Amino acid sequence: MELTKTHLDDAICPVARTAEIISGKWTLLIIRDLTSGVKRFNQLERSLCGISPKTLSERLRSLEEEGVLLRRTFAEVPPRVEYSLTEKGRDLVGVIESMRSYGKRWLCDDQTNQK
Amino acid sequence: MELTKTHLDDAICPVARTAEIISGKWTLLIIRDLTSGVKRFNQLERSLCGISPKTLSERLRSLEEEGVLLRRTFAEVPPRVEYSLTEKGRDLVGVIESMRSYGKRWLCDDQTNQK
Repeated sequence: MELTKTHLDDAICPVARTAEIISGKWTLLIIRDLTSGVKRFNQLERSLCGISPKTLSERLRSLEEEGVLLRRTFAEVPPRVEYSLTEKGRDLVGVIESMRSYGKRWLCDDQTNQK
Repeated sequence: MELTKTHLDDAICPVARTAEIISGKWTLLIIRDLTSGVKRFNQLERSLCGISPKTLSERLRSLEEEGVLLRRTFAEVPPRVEYSLTEKGRDLVGVIESMRSYGKRWLCDDQTNQK
């Protein structure tokens, strides 16, 4: 495939557009955690060792704006906030599964390979 | 899947490990470009609109250290340097293909959808 002008125009390339959404380690791991169902902020914060509340909030907001996840607030005291994947978000699971099988094949030595 | 202690230990998770390698938009696009065969530095630089030579060199070096690509130098005047994917690199094509189909489905409106 010769490097042609259209090839240079990354803005329309599906790979580049998807890369923009999932670029950044935390975004992928948030989506990975939401694939197992609805989560609250502190559940995500506990699962993602090392993420700051500020970074987690920013990533959740940009994923919400991108239409990948849904944020629901329940009028309770204190208010309850839950995050879940939209259909567009659940469809990212295919990308995550291909990463899991790649990681298992190339990046995890045998004894740690029980994920 | 309950959030258990092992779940917190991201270091061994195949998804997190793969995310570390491909995090960052440029890395994915470099791998995407190398899937179509051997490339030289300036070919990659031309294809990746907006990348600086410094960033491109850094990404190529870290992918080489990760074993994802091979750098070959030919003793010519001027010296010729070529980059190609290793088997470990070619195996990332599955991740890229899953991103391409996701991007085509959710992120590209119809008239731009010829990639």
